Amino acid sequence: MKLKVKKINYETGNKKDIIINVKDAQVLGQKAGDRLIVKNIGSKSLEERYWIGILQIDYSNSIVSPGEIGISLDILKEKREIKDNMVLSIKPAELPDSFRFIQKKIKGNKLNSEELNKIISDAATGLLSRIDLAAFITSVNILGMDNEEMTALTLAEARSGETFDFGPDVYDKHSTGGVPGNKVSLIIVPVVATAGLIIPKTSTRAITSPSGTADSMEVLAPVIFDSEEVKKIISEEKACVVWGGALDIAPADNILIEIERPLHMDPVGLMIPSILAKKISMGVKKLVLDIPVGPGTKFPTPNDGKNFAYIFKEIAKNVGVEAECALTLAHQPIGHAVGPALEAKEALTLLMDYSAGPNSLIEKATDLAGILLEMGGKAQKGIGQKLAKEILQSGKAYDTMKKIIGVQGGDPNIKPEEIKLGPYIKEFHATKGGHITGINNALINQIAKAAGCPFSKSSGIEVIKKQGARIKDGDLVFRIYSENQSKLKRAEKIYNSTGGPIVLGGMMIERI
Amino acid sequence: MKLKVKKINYETGNKKDIIINVKDAQVLGQKAGDRLIVKNIGSKSLEERYWIGILQIDYSNSIVSPGEIGISLDILKEKREIKDNMVLSIKPAELPDSFRFIQKKIKGNKLNSEELNKIISDAATGLLSRIDLAAFITSVNILGMDNEEMTALTLAEARSGETFDFGPDVYDKHSTGGVPGNKVSLIIVPVVATAGLIIPKTSTRAITSPSGTADSMEVLAPVIFDSEEVKKIISEEKACVVWGGALDIAPADNILIEIERPLHMDPVGLMIPSILAKKISMGVKKLVLDIPVGPGTKFPTPNDGKNFAYIFKEIAKNVGVEAECALTLAHQPIGHAVGPALEAKEALTLLMDYSAGPNSLIEKATDLAGILLEMGGKAQKGIGQKLAKEILQSGKAYDTMKKIIGVQGGDPNIKPEEIKLGPYIKEFHATKGGHITGINNALINQIAKAAGCPFSKSSGIEVIKKQGARIKDGDLVFRIYSENQSKLKRAEKIYNSTGGPIVLGGMMIERI
Repeated sequence: MKLKVKKINYETGNKKDIIINVKDAQVLGQKAGDRLIVKNIGSKSLEERYWIGILQIDYSNSIVSPGEIGISLDILKEKREIKDNMVLSIKPAELPDSFRFIQKKIKGNKLNSEELNKIISDAATGLLSRIDLAAFITSVNILGMDNEEMTALTLAEARSGETFDFGPDVYDKHSTGGVPGNKVSLIIVPVVATAGLIIPKTSTRAITSPSGTADSMEVLAPVIFDSEEVKKIISEEKACVVWGGALDIAPADNILIEIERPLHMDPVGLMIPSILAKKISMGVKKLVLDIPVGPGTKFPTPNDGKNFAYIFKEIAKNVGVEAECALTLAHQPIGHAVGPALEAKEALTLLMDYSAGPNSLIEKATDLAGILLEMGGKAQKGIGQKLAKEILQSGKAYDTMKKIIGVQGGDPNIKPEEIKLGPYIKEFHATKGGHITGINNALINQIAKAAGCPFSKSSGIEVIKKQGARIKDGDLVFRIYSENQSKLKRAEKIYNSTGGPIVLGGMMIERI
Repeated sequence: MKLKVKKINYETGNKKDIIINVKDAQVLGQKAGDRLIVKNIGSKSLEERYWIGILQIDYSNSIVSPGEIGISLDILKEKREIKDNMVLSIKPAELPDSFRFIQKKIKGNKLNSEELNKIISDAATGLLSRIDLAAFITSVNILGMDNEEMTALTLAEARSGETFDFGPDVYDKHSTGGVPGNKVSLIIVPVVATAGLIIPKTSTRAITSPSGTADSMEVLAPVIFDSEEVKKIISEEKACVVWGGALDIAPADNILIEIERPLHMDPVGLMIPSILAKKISMGVKKLVLDIPVGPGTKFPTPNDGKNFAYIFKEIAKNVGVEAECALTLAHQPIGHAVGPALEAKEALTLLMDYSAGPNSLIEKATDLAGILLEMGGKAQKGIGQKLAKEILQSGKAYDTMKKIIGVQGGDPNIKPEEIKLGPYIKEFHATKGGHITGINNALINQIAKAAGCPFSKSSGIEVIKKQGARIKDGDLVFRIYSENQSKLKRAEKIYNSTGGPIVLGGMMIERI
């Protein structure tokens, strides 16, 4: 069937979508979602001449008339040779092999390396549709992946993008997430870099939490760099804290994540390849993995975390990464600060003055940094944390952080008190005495996001009093910062309607 | 966040999609696929005032600028109160309960009636996205549904649309499909209607096959009617053969099918509710189900078909339908004709002249009609088929068919030789003698579709010689009709490159 091109000023989000009128679709005998071979008759280049499109049908006659083929911006960006009124011919295409491999997985069979490669490369080019990928992700969620499959998937994802080589000895730290205020990377990176280890840390921005490491770091310095710039930063300072999203590392993994996220799925079979593909793309050889365990994290019990750790170490080994895992407490925030600016401020304060604490941040950051120092031969087994604390306390980690901030284009001499915080503030005081028996992390995240996190960097919360603290009636326990008054009101409302995230234990159980 | 409406001249295919600029999405902290509460501040009607939209993001700045909200045709069709430049406010919405119920199923739990109802109603309104439904369908494919779930799903699907009531005694026939040339309904309906049974037959058009019953019937009479017209037809003639797609029966099922089809999934857990929801919507009380078994059908072995039959009967009983199932042979086409016009012609010929055969069509149609006659008390157990044959042979079924054709607006006096067949014809002759040991159904479908079926009604094929036939060198074995020469060539090419669907057995196994 020959059709005239009509450019459509719209992105459908699918790199392959072509749109034809329902009348033509009927003649062709094809339905929405079917794959078609599109032939550009006039083109001399073989690559331009044939491509696969995924059919969308216009039932309304408002986009394309019979005889027209609508080409969206998604395609036009890649296929610049396509012009209005150009004639393209279309015919039904065979299903891609990758589609059959997804069916194979759904039927309960194991996929081999070649099959996973094909699924990943077709996901990257858009040949697999969003619903195909939703089916694949759901099948992995239900049926799992074995170690061989996860290993092959990791390598396939890494192969989909750029890879870096910073030499044979490259270190990194990653967290499976789920605990608020986890700004430990801002301490770990300068500590291990001070000891001479190379650590090209790429971080994510917050997706469902109030702040990601990249959001907090951005308060101190730019985090968006291309690959040449990252290479230059590492050659100069051996360390960085940049946003991974600006680099083309494991892009196929991002395509899966775009479907996993709205489905609220994050199966182990995809999570491990996702973490490791990005690490091997960055040339990482030795990794410490922080696994927060407890309610609200991905691992409700320590045993869940432990099982995950064993599998993770195994797959890491298969792809050439030596990994150590640390199960960590996640019952309350790390430190007191939650939100980009507040977290950057808390980390910077600690780097400048060890005595400022807070203890939970010192302990967790040096625990993890210590493991890296031991893996890198900088400290003997068992004394890595001691060395990490010495480096932090000596002020040398702060000096390194100043260099990192400088090479990333920030002001190395920035002081904690210069970090801008939201001007609208609300403080909460205890209305009776007692001691704090629990902190509700989910509520902390909810209030911080209501206040404007992570997009408003200056918004956030301070948990003044934490678990175990004794408090008197009237003590300040909680503070919210927001960049605007209506967001502050919304955050306040959540606090007041729920009673707040701080659980105060007394002797009385119930008043009758 | 307040945004100005910009109408988008495009259907996204999702009834809830709203589009905002990437800058606004960042401020809002929302991602593509997230659900938002849309508030029409100016509206007085509560129903118009709040609704749920699903977020799409314009990364290109080509659809909506910051401050604008794009509203697609899908929404504008339902919400006529929305005008350009009207101000709408949006804020993040909670996930619908139905989303959580899908997660529950994925985790391996059973869903109750209320939960399935919510999934089906949210699928119908568009509150569940295509990837949500793909996840649901995949989970049913892998984990199955138990009888209680299938029963509840059937009732939920039926509840999503219109229901008919033609009294306490309404009959129907359905086939699970997979055998070419299965025009038996065109015989069964007039036979059982002649005996006095009410049979409001709704049929599908072909989806992956060369002809559906609705496609074949349409050669003889119109098949597109609204519900009032169907009621009138049944009140006059007690029987019809209409296209189900024009009626609003179990529309939620169609939404699931739109996702199942491109995924090539048709799990029993959805197939049974799909069939039965449409039957109970039509007020059917007694049903005979044709279950073709064998390679190429949904049931590779008779045992698969038998297991399915037991489950089907059970679910049917639960929803108030008495069902009998017939496992039928599917190793070769029913009769000789494949394609809308050829099948209509073959059925009409048999109705007018019993001696014209073909035997396979007589036997299968009267087998199934006989079961209905017995269920309806028109024949004693064991002699239903005999009565069906008598009715067919007597010419009374032909008289009834003429009335059905007439009441549906066709020409009751149409003669088989007046049915238009494709003018481009290619005949194939045996190149050696032997007997036919097999027929390749998949290849028959492929050739018929290449010739233009089902959209070109006059295209099709005739399988002149069938399994078991002795043939001599040079005998005519196969004929292709097409409405145009290039399609005929394409069909011919498939025949020639594969050796054709007719497998000729000789004595020699291999020539070396």
